[in-house]
Amino acid sequence: MKLTKEQLEDIRDQQKQNNQTKRVTVPALESILYEALPALDHGFVRVIDYMGDDTSIVQSARVSYGKGTKKVSTDEGLIKYLMRHWHSTPFEMCEIKYHIKLPIFIARQWIRHRTANVNEYSARYSILDKEFYLPTEENLAAQSKSNRQGRGDVLEGNQAKEVLELLKNDAERTYNNYETMLNERFDGSTINENKKGLARELARMNLTLNTYTQWYWKTDLLNLMNFLRLRADSHAQYEIRVYADIMLDSVKKWVPITYDAFMDYRVGGTEVSAKGKLILQKIIKGQDVSPEDSDLSKREWNELMEAFDLKDKIL
Amino acid sequence: MKLTKEQLEDIRDQQKQNNQTKRVTVPALESILYEALPALDHGFVRVIDYMGDDTSIVQSARVSYGKGTKKVSTDEGLIKYLMRHWHSTPFEMCEIKYHIKLPIFIARQWIRHRTANVNEYSARYSILDKEFYLPTEENLAAQSKSNRQGRGDVLEGNQAKEVLELLKNDAERTYNNYETMLNERFDGSTINENKKGLARELARMNLTLNTYTQWYWKTDLLNLMNFLRLRADSHAQYEIRVYADIMLDSVKKWVPITYDAFMDYRVGGTEVSAKGKLILQKIIKGQDVSPEDSDLSKREWNELMEAFDLKDKIL
Amino acid sequence: MKLTKEQLEDIRDQQKQNNQTKRVTVPALESILYEALPALDHGFVRVIDYMGDDTSIVQSARVSYGKGTKKVSTDEGLIKYLMRHWHSTPFEMCEIKYHIKLPIFIARQWIRHRTANVNEYSARYSILDKEFYLPTEENLAAQSKSNRQGRGDVLEGNQAKEVLELLKNDAERTYNNYETMLNERFDGSTINENKKGLARELARMNLTLNTYTQWYWKTDLLNLMNFLRLRADSHAQYEIRVYADIMLDSVKKWVPITYDAFMDYRVGGTEVSAKGKLILQKIIKGQDVSPEDSDLSKREWNELMEAFDLKDKIL
Amino acid sequence: MKLTKEQLEDIRDQQKQNNQTKRVTVPALESILYEALPALDHGFVRVIDYMGDDTSIVQSARVSYGKGTKKVSTDEGLIKYLMRHWHSTPFEMCEIKYHIKLPIFIARQWIRHRTANVNEYSARYSILDKEFYLPTEENLAAQSKSNRQGRGDVLEGNQAKEVLELLKNDAERTYNNYETMLNERFDGSTINENKKGLARELARMNLTLNTYTQWYWKTDLLNLMNFLRLRADSHAQYEIRVYADIMLDSVKKWVPITYDAFMDYRVGGTEVSAKGKLILQKIIKGQDVSPEDSDLSKREWNELMEAFDLKDKIL
Repeated sequence: MKLTKEQLEDIRDQQKQNNQTKRVTVPALESILYEALPALDHGFVRVIDYMGDDTSIVQSARVSYGKGTKKVSTDEGLIKYLMRHWHSTPFEMCEIKYHIKLPIFIARQWIRHRTANVNEYSARYSILDKEFYLPTEENLAAQSKSNRQGRGDVLEGNQAKEVLELLKNDAERTYNNYETMLNERFDGSTINENKKGLARELARMNLTLNTYTQWYWKTDLLNLMNFLRLRADSHAQYEIRVYADIMLDSVKKWVPITYDAFMDYRVGGTEVSAKGKLILQKIIKGQDVSPEDSDLSKREWNELMEAFDLKDKIL
Repeated sequence: MKLTKEQLEDIRDQQKQNNQTKRVTVPALESILYEALPALDHGFVRVIDYMGDDTSIVQSARVSYGKGTKKVSTDEGLIKYLMRHWHSTPFEMCEIKYHIKLPIFIARQWIRHRTANVNEYSARYSILDKEFYLPTEENLAAQSKSNRQGRGDVLEGNQAKEVLELLKNDAERTYNNYETMLNERFDGSTINENKKGLARELARMNLTLNTYTQWYWKTDLLNLMNFLRLRADSHAQYEIRVYADIMLDSVKKWVPITYDAFMDYRVGGTEVSAKGKLILQKIIKGQDVSPEDSDLSKREWNELMEAFDLKDKIL
Repeated sequence: MKLTKEQLEDIRDQQKQNNQTKRVTVPALESILYEALPALDHGFVRVIDYMGDDTSIVQSARVSYGKGTKKVSTDEGLIKYLMRHWHSTPFEMCEIKYHIKLPIFIARQWIRHRTANVNEYSARYSILDKEFYLPTEENLAAQSKSNRQGRGDVLEGNQAKEVLELLKNDAERTYNNYETMLNERFDGSTINENKKGLARELARMNLTLNTYTQWYWKTDLLNLMNFLRLRADSHAQYEIRVYADIMLDSVKKWVPITYDAFMDYRVGGTEVSAKGKLILQKIIKGQDVSPEDSDLSKREWNELMEAFDLKDKIL
Repeated sequence: MKLTKEQLEDIRDQQKQNNQTKRVTVPALESILYEALPALDHGFVRVIDYMGDDTSIVQSARVSYGKGTKKVSTDEGLIKYLMRHWHSTPFEMCEIKYHIKLPIFIARQWIRHRTANVNEYSARYSILDKEFYLPTEENLAAQSKSNRQGRGDVLEGNQAKEVLELLKNDAERTYNNYETMLNERFDGSTINENKKGLARELARMNLTLNTYTQWYWKTDLLNLMNFLRLRADSHAQYEIRVYADIMLDSVKKWVPITYDAFMDYRVGGTEVSAKGKLILQKIIKGQDVSPEDSDLSKREWNELMEAFDLKDKIL
């Protein structure tokens, strides 16, 4: 990630601010505020603003449950209780805003989470930066044989190089032709004074999906956790997980108690179906169980055995 | 509005906070932060937290439109442009959180605005305060004859007194019986040691709809303006307008440039239908127009004439 | 539940329709279409319209995953897979519309589910029906001692009668005074020709929270399941569970395959936290576990032991 | 647009359905159900399912306003009233589902409308079709000089040809290299038996933004009108307007009364700001107005004069 001089100055100016406020503040999060945390080869995650902290969740829960919450003596106890029983609305009382730079094909996956506010850089108005994502060699995975949406082994030797060459050349060529069609270079200079440029809203269609875009993305803590649960998960595509991991870390700085509860009950937890529960009950009682009688699919069976460390039962 | 000693202390404690932050702050809004601004006879509006200011809207718009916004030189010009062309997403980048105390029948109207985060005091968990809304005499209006959902003249003399008596007595009686059923008084003391109390989630059904409830209500600026446009309007029910007017004032303190644009383009503006436009065009050209040829209903015709100060044409 | 002659005729007329369509239809659901299924003493649930069936879910999933879904050979297999892996969007492709009559205090709980479309009977425009919910004696539960929002034992003998008397008398008195203030009876007749009536939007505040209201409520299948998961649960308030159970039954008629998957993975399933998982793994391996070393609260420990039928370990 | 034999058969099978239903049906919409209505060079719009019609809007409005709606005697009168006064919820009671094939850069614009249900073809699972959008010559517009996001004159002669060549060659080359990286052709055949293919979720990043994708898109009538108001507007990008116009036509077939009200009050209507209103009032009264004293920007002034056919006042 290379920021322009202008961007670096902007960040420095923002970080120099020192305002007084009666609002709650989170020093640990303030310490990384506005910082461009690198993601992939040219992307970044920046925390731009936030509202509330762990005590804000507790405060609104106490408004809801009134004197009913007096029994839960500590903030930690209350937050764990809320997380465990899916009491979602108190977590909506915290809000965070990020500035993200990311490849378009990841932006398309990301935007499917609808419960957020977004302002994306518009290629109808302006020229996109000349930056595209190229995976490192260890991330050039082959298509998985077993999982339709997964990755298998890493591509070897020559093939990896070939792929990288193709990606790089195609991105550069299409970007150059984008400039040619616009009759304008990414730095704003005109190419040929005697020519018109194609409308930006049209020229952009020539770019490849690994071109970087950027946006402001604002959401509440509940929806952020829903996003992270799916996107910081091992089944998520690596390229979005990189962003999710950085954001997960910002959650840890921002609301450390909620973060712990989230890791315990959501990220590290498991769901067991009604049928799966019966099987585990039998295993615990020392009774025989077999995949055939379980009414589970093979994959479902294996996931259950793996979750409870029953390696000898994996098919 | 009378706050308990405990509440007053809480507010004082919150207002005493003096934290350092790198986030943008709005001193005018900070000056009323946490304050209980009175609404109706026992209600209040409190601004609890906020995120962003006018510059945050500008900042995210400039991310969207990139170099494309350079032409609009001032923040004010850009905000007016956004408001006029219904560019909604930059206004979603600001967030505000209120603590509101309000009668239940107003809460029911309010909650129909779905795009907000809410934590309401739960009468399943806790006992509701012994407070109910009683209108002042000048707000005791008769049913309008012309408008199915509106108010007409104020009730006169004795009838106003009668109505107030009924409202007061019924609210008090049902509240007392609520306590009897709970076997517990609003201050938490038990009534009869030898009796059980009815479950709170059931006993609450005996309360009248003018009983006060309270909630934390958090929303972004765009959705707040949508709410205020409808609820600070002269057609809104008086009791919700009281709250909307207080909130409108907090918007003015918070984002003054956006407030001005909102008042000009939304609140003070008018919509003219395709048919209405043709009629106005004719009037401007000095041509004859008549309600019969207009294809407008009588009410629609009158609203158009009123909006453009054509009093002699009102039917 | 007693319907007026007019309502019964409306229902009969709607059910007499026999239209041709190229859309998918569900005969089992058509067989109860428009029917007023009784709920509580005066409420009902009516299925008014629907869109799609189990095959619509499969169809849109196959659009998403393209040739990638060919491996999952059956519709049932695919729906189970989607449910198990929280692939939510295909379930949003089905839509259903209900007409519900319910007490206001339940409507207030219900409306907190924001992802639905609602048209409620407006007491600003019209007079509410003279109907209020009175629990049967076996539902008159005392406040739970252990659970702040739960119910304990049923009230006994005289106290139950007392409570019912209070509820009945207060509802009737406040309704009568509502009519007096309106100067109009629920059948539309005027009480005193020489008096004005109080505006409806004001008079309604005198009604108790067990007064019945009604609404059209439309949602997609995903959000309906989210609603049912919470409201058909044993921890939900009995009065809303009655409605949820009827709606759950309509889901069974409408999308039987999805219903089965929902019951297995969501309703009948359990979530195990990261810490809980470690404990179960130890139990399965025959290792010692104790609540003290578990880092679980007493309540959490007990819920885990109960879920896996480890009764001797419950504290 | 060329459909495969398989797709054509699917459509024919769907259209052959002839089911009985008690639900309301709309013969005019049924007549185009499932049909692939062509859009751009390879795209289409298909209406897949719908719920409700004009009477459904009326029906739910009558539930809301109860006896209060009796005064509005006709369905048309009521729908116009609802549209004019922004009573939005009755329009949410109708739902429609489309199957759309569209270029990715248009899909990115479209998805910003968040209040819809979407299932998009996933290039993580499956290989995208070898189809990309190439504008016709009359749509190859130059960048507008006056409007940052608009189009100006059409490119002339050679330059148009050059642009089309670049777009075509780049799309083909990147698609071919996509196949090479996948080691698989779009028809599913393997290229080199001895090689692995790059994971689909990675290879897709090499495609250009004019590649076609497809999705199921389902929304209610209110949100559909919000979408169409923006996207069937003359300021919308031509390529999305093509889709919006087809959908607008399906709305006309589906809910003709609502369509008329929508065209009159929303599409054909105008908003006049508070300041603009004052100016029009003066003009009507024959008083002098000048842009300098108006407090309007030049562009705002011109738009107002144009809307009311005051051509001589345009600057």
